[in-house]
Amino acid sequence: MTTATRTPPRPLDAQALWQKDRDHFIHPFTDFSLFHDKGCDLIVDSNGIYVEDIHGNRFIDGIAGLWCVNVGHGRAEIGQAMAEQATRMAYFSTFNNLSNAPAAELAAKLAELAPANLNHVFYSCGGSAANDATVRLVHYYFNRLGKPNKKRILSRHNAYHGTTYLAASLTGIESNNWGFDTLDHLVTHLSEANLYRRPKGMSEAEYCDHLVAELEETIERIGAEHIAAFIAEPIMGAGGVLMAPRGYHARMQAVCRAHEILYIADEVVTGFGRLGHFFASEAVFDTQPDIINCAKGLSSGYAPLGATLISDEIYEVLGTPQRKGGVLSTGFTYSGHPVSCAAALKNIEIMEREGICANVREVGPYLERQLKTLSHHATVGDVRGSHFMLAIENVADKASKALLPVEARVGDRVAAEAQKRGLIIRPVGHLNIISPPLIWDRAVVDRVVAILDEAFTATTTSLRQDGYL
Amino acid sequence: MTTATRTPPRPLDAQALWQKDRDHFIHPFTDFSLFHDKGCDLIVDSNGIYVEDIHGNRFIDGIAGLWCVNVGHGRAEIGQAMAEQATRMAYFSTFNNLSNAPAAELAAKLAELAPANLNHVFYSCGGSAANDATVRLVHYYFNRLGKPNKKRILSRHNAYHGTTYLAASLTGIESNNWGFDTLDHLVTHLSEANLYRRPKGMSEAEYCDHLVAELEETIERIGAEHIAAFIAEPIMGAGGVLMAPRGYHARMQAVCRAHEILYIADEVVTGFGRLGHFFASEAVFDTQPDIINCAKGLSSGYAPLGATLISDEIYEVLGTPQRKGGVLSTGFTYSGHPVSCAAALKNIEIMEREGICANVREVGPYLERQLKTLSHHATVGDVRGSHFMLAIENVADKASKALLPVEARVGDRVAAEAQKRGLIIRPVGHLNIISPPLIWDRAVVDRVVAILDEAFTATTTSLRQDGYL
Repeated sequence: MTTATRTPPRPLDAQALWQKDRDHFIHPFTDFSLFHDKGCDLIVDSNGIYVEDIHGNRFIDGIAGLWCVNVGHGRAEIGQAMAEQATRMAYFSTFNNLSNAPAAELAAKLAELAPANLNHVFYSCGGSAANDATVRLVHYYFNRLGKPNKKRILSRHNAYHGTTYLAASLTGIESNNWGFDTLDHLVTHLSEANLYRRPKGMSEAEYCDHLVAELEETIERIGAEHIAAFIAEPIMGAGGVLMAPRGYHARMQAVCRAHEILYIADEVVTGFGRLGHFFASEAVFDTQPDIINCAKGLSSGYAPLGATLISDEIYEVLGTPQRKGGVLSTGFTYSGHPVSCAAALKNIEIMEREGICANVREVGPYLERQLKTLSHHATVGDVRGSHFMLAIENVADKASKALLPVEARVGDRVAAEAQKRGLIIRPVGHLNIISPPLIWDRAVVDRVVAILDEAFTATTTSLRQDGYL
Repeated sequence: MTTATRTPPRPLDAQALWQKDRDHFIHPFTDFSLFHDKGCDLIVDSNGIYVEDIHGNRFIDGIAGLWCVNVGHGRAEIGQAMAEQATRMAYFSTFNNLSNAPAAELAAKLAELAPANLNHVFYSCGGSAANDATVRLVHYYFNRLGKPNKKRILSRHNAYHGTTYLAASLTGIESNNWGFDTLDHLVTHLSEANLYRRPKGMSEAEYCDHLVAELEETIERIGAEHIAAFIAEPIMGAGGVLMAPRGYHARMQAVCRAHEILYIADEVVTGFGRLGHFFASEAVFDTQPDIINCAKGLSSGYAPLGATLISDEIYEVLGTPQRKGGVLSTGFTYSGHPVSCAAALKNIEIMEREGICANVREVGPYLERQLKTLSHHATVGDVRGSHFMLAIENVADKASKALLPVEARVGDRVAAEAQKRGLIIRPVGHLNIISPPLIWDRAVVDRVVAILDEAFTATTTSLRQDGYL
């Protein structure tokens, strides 16, 4: 697929920018023992499936920025829509009785795209804030229903729901909270759903029974009257692209519904086409969440934006003042930001016009199949995921699934070998995550798999040289 | 001051948009008892000091969107900078060892503009997330120093620090949390600093002593070993543009410093020129915060962006891994978003090029003086604030400072009368807040004060007709 005209790049001073970055930018999720010496590679150009660093090295973007750039890079028409809106009316408050055209238009569009009864949109600027706001609204909801004890949120180990104070507490990736505090009184973490590392000897169906039983036991133990909601990514993202057993989500939801526990689907990663549909909850997993959160692909990352889609039933409660003169006193200065909403509207228009969900449904299974051809490599223990959301789990021993020692940094090695060959993929511990722009075709898949084949060969060699294999 | 070329407006269907908005957009801080019937006015066009609704009614924007649009509306060059960045490289992750040019450039620029030792920038998408992230980082900091009990945050009644779960807990405006839950174990609220409603018979100096003594007593009671930080807006914004007594901030900071309590200045409103300087903490209030948060004026609201400026001393701790392989595992997908940072860079360039801080220092005192000429109106109890951050407090009786009954909705009445006459100001309870774009000149001030003069006359008449005066 092509992209529109490019503006001529300004000349950039690589050394000066590197220095400014290193001296002044506190990067998220960064190992500062490396950063102080090495600083950052600056990604400064992009086009379609490619990004380019400040030294002119071009890479296939295998992570869509960070599960974001679903329509691909360099879409001048999104930039143009943003510029037009910024010039026409960049910003005005949406508090009280004021609104703007793109926010209204996008809210209606999201209601059209979402499952049937999710007709109401609460805006934020990203996934963390969307999940944070959701818990705040859910607590408000149960307060209004006269159930002030119904507050605890069930999440899962290895879940990723963001990094506000509350969102980090929902997150269940242990290393994410090393050194940080969390709100443990508000969250209980259930087991992750992880087909690859399920207990030995359990069938997929038995594993599903096992996880559902854990939910039931947890509700029994804590008491449904103390539990507000269950939050789950349809496929766990940053936790390792963990796949649940078939039927898991629908059965978890049924148990929740029986206990008046709201079901919140965190579709920040799975939404907007990554699994071949605008939303995966109903289309792929046969669930009808009470709330769906989205971000990332919503604007393809061209502008910060998050949205919480809320059911008619919950809105009826939220939309009734808590007392005379009471307002729903939450939300952000940039809730419904006109420029971000204009970017999202153009992004959705492109997705529909170019049939991007259909491309994912067509190319996704091919990508899965081709990645599985890498299974013969010594470290490739598991190739998993679905459509454009995939991961390879590296192991020391395929039979026992034993991991390599952390200091072997296997994920980093594979990623570095791929990058040398012109492909960016994401290392997460012993995993490598592949979550490309949704415009890859079969020819790109073939190039990517050829690069990965070489990268795994080189990694195996280097691990052997260093005595890890 | 002029703005650049405008794009031709698209035709908008007023009725259809109104309906979409009402049916699908859950507005922040909205009274739904009114919203369901009346819906919203759509602000769709803007230029310089003006905004225009969908019916073609033009208003002087007296609130800068919501303390945001500091350089004024319709700046095509900001839109253009955003479009160029969006087309060149809209988004790539800043996690790990990757960065982008605008984020690096802006971080260095902010370090240059901020007080001397605030050289390190943690990005977010707005004030709520900036304050939330700050507390998270402050807790991490004290954990790293081996002081895990030093966690409580001192805030103030009527403070506004945002609406994430944690930020809403810092916020001290009581009605903001009607029906919502807060994290009371993490926050203690001191008295607001409110010169106008200070205890009867106290001089300004005595009032300052009184507030400082309260801080000292609170530290004595809770124990400095349990207190992490004090957070304060230099002038309280949404809480009512409350002015502290002279010397208050510097004395509060001295007490904090003596007890190893970090001083966090929330400059989301006061930053970027509203008081005539890029940051007010040092230039206006003679304080050297450990951390300054900003948002809003940082990008003039053209794109969602927040920044936390952190001292060298704190960065030294944050930038040392908590263990081998440990990363500073917090931050957002959109931390250092290229397009938002490009908007901020262009915004700062405009502010410097046009001398906007100087304009505020020149016109601000005139605006203050002219607003005070409204003091003869029956309801005008106090005209306060500084430069382009001002409020009028309406009362029933000037001597006793007694308020009108809530149901008189005096702030709403004044705002509605002003809006009829072509000026948007913000009603907050019995207050009216005026926080314009920073490009007003004396002629605009004269027009605005003339409109307000009429609006207060009309309000007095209607309050008398309704038996409230």
